[in-house]
Amino acid sequence: MDAPAPPNAATLDWPATPGWLACADVLDAAPTPAVVLDLDVARRNIARAAVLAREHGVALRPHVKTHKSLRLAALQRAAGAAGFTAAKPSEAAVFLRAGLPVTVAYPVLRPEVVRMLGDAAGGGEVRFVVDSMPGLHALSSAAQQLGRTIPAYMEVDVGLRRCGVAPDSPNALALAAALARAPGVRFLGLLSHAGQAYAARGPAEVQAIAAAERAALTSLASRLEQHGIPVPERSVGSTPTAFHHDGFAGLTEARPGNYVFMDLIAVALGVAQPADVALQVSATVVSANAAYAIVDAGSKVLSSDRAPHGADTVQGHGLAIPLRGGGARPVVRLSEEHGFVAQDPANPLPVGARVRIVPNHACPVANLADAYLVVDGTGATDHWPVDARGAVQ
Amino acid sequence: MDAPAPPNAATLDWPATPGWLACADVLDAAPTPAVVLDLDVARRNIARAAVLAREHGVALRPHVKTHKSLRLAALQRAAGAAGFTAAKPSEAAVFLRAGLPVTVAYPVLRPEVVRMLGDAAGGGEVRFVVDSMPGLHALSSAAQQLGRTIPAYMEVDVGLRRCGVAPDSPNALALAAALARAPGVRFLGLLSHAGQAYAARGPAEVQAIAAAERAALTSLASRLEQHGIPVPERSVGSTPTAFHHDGFAGLTEARPGNYVFMDLIAVALGVAQPADVALQVSATVVSANAAYAIVDAGSKVLSSDRAPHGADTVQGHGLAIPLRGGGARPVVRLSEEHGFVAQDPANPLPVGARVRIVPNHACPVANLADAYLVVDGTGATDHWPVDARGAVQ
Repeated sequence: MDAPAPPNAATLDWPATPGWLACADVLDAAPTPAVVLDLDVARRNIARAAVLAREHGVALRPHVKTHKSLRLAALQRAAGAAGFTAAKPSEAAVFLRAGLPVTVAYPVLRPEVVRMLGDAAGGGEVRFVVDSMPGLHALSSAAQQLGRTIPAYMEVDVGLRRCGVAPDSPNALALAAALARAPGVRFLGLLSHAGQAYAARGPAEVQAIAAAERAALTSLASRLEQHGIPVPERSVGSTPTAFHHDGFAGLTEARPGNYVFMDLIAVALGVAQPADVALQVSATVVSANAAYAIVDAGSKVLSSDRAPHGADTVQGHGLAIPLRGGGARPVVRLSEEHGFVAQDPANPLPVGARVRIVPNHACPVANLADAYLVVDGTGATDHWPVDARGAVQ
Repeated sequence: MDAPAPPNAATLDWPATPGWLACADVLDAAPTPAVVLDLDVARRNIARAAVLAREHGVALRPHVKTHKSLRLAALQRAAGAAGFTAAKPSEAAVFLRAGLPVTVAYPVLRPEVVRMLGDAAGGGEVRFVVDSMPGLHALSSAAQQLGRTIPAYMEVDVGLRRCGVAPDSPNALALAAALARAPGVRFLGLLSHAGQAYAARGPAEVQAIAAAERAALTSLASRLEQHGIPVPERSVGSTPTAFHHDGFAGLTEARPGNYVFMDLIAVALGVAQPADVALQVSATVVSANAAYAIVDAGSKVLSSDRAPHGADTVQGHGLAIPLRGGGARPVVRLSEEHGFVAQDPANPLPVGARVRIVPNHACPVANLADAYLVVDGTGATDHWPVDARGAVQ
């Protein structure tokens, strides 16, 4: 796919969100760079997905890889989340130990990791995914060692070419049958991630991807049930397809993650408006030349991610918006600790100017910080830890 | 510049390094992903730069942003490093508190940050850089509050268009003069970073960049000295230009960072051979399809960096080398926790296969891990913390 131009992101109006307005004095004085979370906006995003899930009768299991925060998970839980989704064992363990139900949406191959997660869950629920016989053997042997029944989805590849069985393959039926009869394993149903939606050229293409994903899961579920394998769960999950959806008929749950923060990609895909972006990075111009205002936020704060899954959805590395007025301007290049913001010759940013940067992709930004600087519309500020960051495994 | 093809990196021979060979059993069994440091190779890289600096009569102040490790800094110090260079205040503070002399190669604009670093240094040395009058004012006012004299370089832009004054500008003379007479500040001389060398198309172009950098610094130094401003230090620093150099006549110190690890970029630029790469990521194939072997190392382990400073030196996101034989193959795409390794149809990697991944750019990889898994040729293994990671400021 060709990379689409963003919907004139730099020319959109990027109003300061409620927390930025109410906490302007604190944000003006706080050290930079800082990963700033506007709690008013995050709460609204959390409510939006909760309403969507309720309206469509699906369970919401938000992906915590985006925020890695127990406090944000608590807000999602209070808004009705049935459970959570994690991207790797260390991340899952943090949320399991806090007593939250977690789906480890990652093929775990080592029985000792399954056991560790079972221990972390205590009496609570931990769900797994399987897409290969070695994965199933690991799960089944760990289940028997733990003396508990482990619920597991079969992951289905709906076009990302990452994990998952091909839905129309003989292997899909064979693996589901093996899952359904494996000792210690309870077959939950099907799970997919249509991550290719991040490379779509707008809402219509995202919706078409959501439609194809739903068709793939529901037709595979029918095929399995015709073979006597009940498929109670049909779980999909991405922020673009959650909002540009095709209805949820035949599906049972959604696992969006990014929606709590949103970002420039979400705006480019038409999933969010500028006012919906909850996570921004405050930065200071530390040097300036004719071409660039150099800010103190580089790839070790913003990450080098252009978009999820290597998509090329937008140009550059974020959008910098001066706090003291002046239009948004692109972050065109990153060093590790510096961002290169294009200077506007008519209104160049001087050394010392403050900007807020809307990142391309919020998830890796949270992963790079120890804590959020939390602001809200009441003027209150706080620091919230990024609880599950750090461990790579 | 057009992106050059790497020197057939995938077709080079990538032998296992001494630590990987001696610790094969541990590495086979250790959880993945892991950021593996071969200490034999790192020691050799450290020695190589130390010899280079001694031969050319320049001081070596290695950049710690690469490793963020007190133990690696200790090895560099033992090999003769005169001091260290850091990319941001939080990083500098970790090394200052350990009693090491540090240059904060970053324009600090807040007097309270200068004071914090002065306190962290205790009786030891902390050097700063200045490229603007606001930066100089911050330094001078903090120096007076601290009651100590603060040594500072003037940063010079030698082509990266990032920080630094233009060497042939009137501003260069004006700022140097202001630095030389600012209360509490001792003008050290000139400092530059020719980061554009990472976008070069091979050794000859790197060397030309080194020559231009040396010419820019030495001629500006002459101009300043003609105006009665002594310029004792002329500090350059990047790994490519340190090794593809133009001699160091008129220069006094070098600040390479990446050389301790090296990476695919260093190999592509001809600065390192495959056997010189000390940092690799061990990973496991967790899923496999006809197109890709999916490994458990994505952008949250390898980073999305294609190359430093946004250069496009190599294609893809690293090179995966099977531990049990088979040729190197490119990591063509990254999700946050998954890497897409191109399958070789003649020899596809199955689920469970182990690979070592040579990253494009080692510096952000270390920044994403809490610890190194250290191996060496004696068969000893250890875990070393990445001491200075985490804080974004």
